[in-house]
Amino acid sequence: MTSATQNSPVAQTALRAREAAALLAPQPRTARDGALLAIADALVARTPEITAANAEDIARARAAGTDDSIVDRLTLTEERVAAIAADVRRVVGLPDPVGEVVRGSTLANGLELRQIRVPFGVVGIIYEARPNVTVDAAALCLKSGNAVLLRGSSSAYASNAALVAVVRDAVASAGLPADAVQLVPGEGRESVHELMTARGLVDVLIPRGGASLIKTVVEGSTVPVIETGTGNCHVYVDEAADLDMAVEILVNSKAHRPSVCNAAETVLVHRAVAAEFLPRALSALADAGVTVHGDEEWQQASGSVVPAGEDDWATEYLSFDLAAAVVPDLDAAVAHIRRWSSGHTEAIVTRDTAAARRFVALVDSTAVMVNASTRFTDGGEFGFGAEIGISTQKLHARGPMGLPELTSTKYVVTGDGHVRP
Amino acid sequence: MTSATQNSPVAQTALRAREAAALLAPQPRTARDGALLAIADALVARTPEITAANAEDIARARAAGTDDSIVDRLTLTEERVAAIAADVRRVVGLPDPVGEVVRGSTLANGLELRQIRVPFGVVGIIYEARPNVTVDAAALCLKSGNAVLLRGSSSAYASNAALVAVVRDAVASAGLPADAVQLVPGEGRESVHELMTARGLVDVLIPRGGASLIKTVVEGSTVPVIETGTGNCHVYVDEAADLDMAVEILVNSKAHRPSVCNAAETVLVHRAVAAEFLPRALSALADAGVTVHGDEEWQQASGSVVPAGEDDWATEYLSFDLAAAVVPDLDAAVAHIRRWSSGHTEAIVTRDTAAARRFVALVDSTAVMVNASTRFTDGGEFGFGAEIGISTQKLHARGPMGLPELTSTKYVVTGDGHVRP
Repeated sequence: MTSATQNSPVAQTALRAREAAALLAPQPRTARDGALLAIADALVARTPEITAANAEDIARARAAGTDDSIVDRLTLTEERVAAIAADVRRVVGLPDPVGEVVRGSTLANGLELRQIRVPFGVVGIIYEARPNVTVDAAALCLKSGNAVLLRGSSSAYASNAALVAVVRDAVASAGLPADAVQLVPGEGRESVHELMTARGLVDVLIPRGGASLIKTVVEGSTVPVIETGTGNCHVYVDEAADLDMAVEILVNSKAHRPSVCNAAETVLVHRAVAAEFLPRALSALADAGVTVHGDEEWQQASGSVVPAGEDDWATEYLSFDLAAAVVPDLDAAVAHIRRWSSGHTEAIVTRDTAAARRFVALVDSTAVMVNASTRFTDGGEFGFGAEIGISTQKLHARGPMGLPELTSTKYVVTGDGHVRP
Repeated sequence: MTSATQNSPVAQTALRAREAAALLAPQPRTARDGALLAIADALVARTPEITAANAEDIARARAAGTDDSIVDRLTLTEERVAAIAADVRRVVGLPDPVGEVVRGSTLANGLELRQIRVPFGVVGIIYEARPNVTVDAAALCLKSGNAVLLRGSSSAYASNAALVAVVRDAVASAGLPADAVQLVPGEGRESVHELMTARGLVDVLIPRGGASLIKTVVEGSTVPVIETGTGNCHVYVDEAADLDMAVEILVNSKAHRPSVCNAAETVLVHRAVAAEFLPRALSALADAGVTVHGDEEWQQASGSVVPAGEDDWATEYLSFDLAAAVVPDLDAAVAHIRRWSSGHTEAIVTRDTAAARRFVALVDSTAVMVNASTRFTDGGEFGFGAEIGISTQKLHARGPMGLPELTSTKYVVTGDGHVRP
């Protein structure tokens, strides 16, 4: 690392985070939980200064002609701050990942081997829009013994700065280093680049946001990255499907909340049930407000179906749109999924155990649902109690990431003078 | 990915590997073990063509004036090929990581959740020197259900090509896809670069070799990398150490096999025992042929001690050289280690449980030894039965990597029509 990089404001921040991480790592659970409770209390007590800072961001956003829906996501009210504080209190109750013995044995020579969960050290989070992520990420990192560097969107800079100021004061009041939680200085692209290339100072980077943000971080970082989020999810309706169940799962997967990564984007239907399924699905999808972009067979089933091409197979709509195709068999469905899926979540609807088993074995995605909605791929739904993101990569963590996924491990080997013969 | 990249010879190889990986992933253990046994048999049966190809590499190496020690590492004899085959047979007997249920529960709504180990898909190995790595890596990747792309050193190209030809034939004879094992085409740097940037085609890259190779791969890859190997390891002799034990552990850590990553490079001695320990350590180290590069107190203890500076604290000697310092206390030892260690292995020698506990808690390295030699950080010594390398990063795997570390996971969620309310 060049000294120029070492001297950048971001590197200086990261160096302070490293020092804080070293102090934080050996702290017992009670100390970390105490800091979290202090944060929750402080958020409630200092709500007025948080909402005042938020008002600045909102005024800027409105002046820039920002969409109402985005302004709404940016907005912090007294109720929303209270909800954020309540989320922090919930994190206190989650099992402590730090110190868990993942593996252990006594070796043939009597050496005692333990593999123990330890914090990563310094975690960088690059995220967009909603300022609640600022507190949420800080709480999960503190709970797992990590220092965190937060880089939110510039549109929420005043809100994030206010929230981090409150969090830092609370952490310090609980006797832990305030520098365990820091906002990355600077609002420009340069500071993101410095964070992405702070290898040796930052242990892992987690981008949370749209596809373009994630692509930028994944391709430009020298710091190890956990890729999150993009979900081009599929529902496959097998020839042995219960078609009522299939309609219900399809509509839920697509229309329950279309803007999130575990929403379905494509339905694939076995030819043997297409004649019966397509009209029923089209009716239910229409009722749910979904526009279908279909292949020829879907187009023949209804004049309302928009012709679909390769772009539709590739697209994560994140809207009330659905790509649709008829396939000759299960293997063709798997081939389509292998070709086009982002590897997030795929569902099969079938009563045939052999079909379910084959689909599960051949689909190479983070989560495979059998007779269940794609919407279940979620840390909360999985019972993890918290989620820092959904990893779509294969290294380290795959799928919803809870607290254990925010840790590494180390081996502790205890002997009484053992040497290699 | 641009079409130019897709059309490169390396990308074509990787695409074939992906197809092979898709066929390989659902294969049961018996099929994968059958291929391994076929490989072992074929290596023995076709030894003459392997040694003939090896003779070409040796002749080239000798003509280029290569060191005898390197020529020796390059050399394959009938005995060495038999030993490689025996290693493959040992891998057959190891537990199958694929399909292991890592975590499972029934959720409150009745959904059955399982997190299951699955192969990565395509693993790339970039390595130097010894051609036995070719077969070893192929066997571990096949056992864990992965396709492998092998990029050995150009000095072993003929040997590696012969070995891979034998392995591929054996894999095909066992009914598995030959393209599950491929040599990366080309001997130049360009092919390494193409492998490193084949994101989306290669799931993980593992570099094995010297520090410069690993640095190149870590910094230049867009494919996720598992960093291996560099070991600037420390032995700390506490004030409460059994000094006989400390001498023995120090000499073993340094001199048992100085050329490997788990050899010690620096000793740190608590000031309270320095007067007694230094002369005894210097005598034993001298007997073992070790040159000590010490601070002032070590220099005062013996005229044979070479003055040490920051370069010595930073250096992984990989030779019969040892950096040595006296420290005021345990925390100073930890601070030195945090500043200079590569995070591989550190040992403390002490009879004091509180000192051991504090050292373990504060040292942020892959392995921490209490009253044991640093040389124990090894997949074989840890009882893993195999080792694809020693990870010194915190993401995914940390420490010796066995078969489970060559896998990812996926979630399988089974319901009977579950939708999100």
